[in-house]
Amino acid sequence: MGANGDGDPVDTQEAIMHATYRALCTHGYANLTMQSIADEFDKTKGVIHYHYDTKQDLLVAFLEYLLDAFERNIAVDESDDPVTRLEALVETLLFGPPERGEFDHWELTTAMLEIRSEAPHNAEFRRQLSHNYETVEAMVIAIVEEGSEQGVFRDVDPEAVATLLLTAINGARIYQVTLGRDDVAELTNESLEAIVRDWLCHPDANGE
Amino acid sequence: MGANGDGDPVDTQEAIMHATYRALCTHGYANLTMQSIADEFDKTKGVIHYHYDTKQDLLVAFLEYLLDAFERNIAVDESDDPVTRLEALVETLLFGPPERGEFDHWELTTAMLEIRSEAPHNAEFRRQLSHNYETVEAMVIAIVEEGSEQGVFRDVDPEAVATLLLTAINGARIYQVTLGRDDVAELTNESLEAIVRDWLCHPDANGE
Repeated sequence: MGANGDGDPVDTQEAIMHATYRALCTHGYANLTMQSIADEFDKTKGVIHYHYDTKQDLLVAFLEYLLDAFERNIAVDESDDPVTRLEALVETLLFGPPERGEFDHWELTTAMLEIRSEAPHNAEFRRQLSHNYETVEAMVIAIVEEGSEQGVFRDVDPEAVATLLLTAINGARIYQVTLGRDDVAELTNESLEAIVRDWLCHPDANGE
Repeated sequence: MGANGDGDPVDTQEAIMHATYRALCTHGYANLTMQSIADEFDKTKGVIHYHYDTKQDLLVAFLEYLLDAFERNIAVDESDDPVTRLEALVETLLFGPPERGEFDHWELTTAMLEIRSEAPHNAEFRRQLSHNYETVEAMVIAIVEEGSEQGVFRDVDPEAVATLLLTAINGARIYQVTLGRDDVAELTNESLEAIVRDWLCHPDANGE
């Protein structure tokens, strides 16, 4: 798929997505134009317009592309126990996948923040971001439910636990790039680990 | 201060700040221009330029104005016990001040998100946002330390607790406006309350 060189529309679309990513990282959302995307790309603005009628269409496709890559990167090893899986998921969400992914984690967080800031004005962005949120939320809920069934976790509302983890991770990543502080992500990881081990885990399951 | 009508520069600057806020809420950061600010304002673009050389200067002043208002609004009653103070602070940060503040909470969160998304590209925004983060962090740390001294809270790293609360609150507010989900903020408040009561509070202090 998409390995036939220049003329292949899949290759071209992939190249446009990469160019959009680079243009967004370089110029920021406020200064992102079709021209600035074409400048990151060995083809003309006309080629971009052939595939995407408007900048809006292009950005909707771009967000889908980012979120697909994100969902591929957060798969966890189903054979691990719930505590290990939950902690691995938190670490991957906070710091990126263990094997270096397709994107630099800092740049990706910055690019996602730019798109998020448009979401209050853009129903299609909200729809895509909501779908992504619900996918990750469902992963956390499944792990918490399994841990509760096994008696490892105490009897909690899985959705409340998922909300706490996802909001803390989202907030930490945004502070990381907006304050320039990697230590906020490190401290969040430590705090969430403490919450999982000292609060979420059933007291009887401690020290086993 | 600033009650002398039209010619008073303090009044004019205050009016420019309000116009900037309205223009930002209406058009978003990407479409914010000096003209769109002037349109929200009963004076000309020239008046804005008289006070602020560039849009960048204006936005730096605007962020300072927002953060000053924010810091005035989050004062907590020092006479309350640490648990009550911590929960009141979390609620104010999540939902806005108990008495309706100068700004609509949803609009303010959206406006702040737009400015945050520029911070990776803007050192002055990062400096101001960092100062604001440290102010709120210091408030949480002071409450946690007092609670630990009183034996109400267990022996924890106050900075780690502050990081967890601030990241979860920031993430929740951003999800609130980018996914259009108020329930995320409600659930975050419930989760943080559970964390404070069931994890942060010393087990011996429970049920007293």
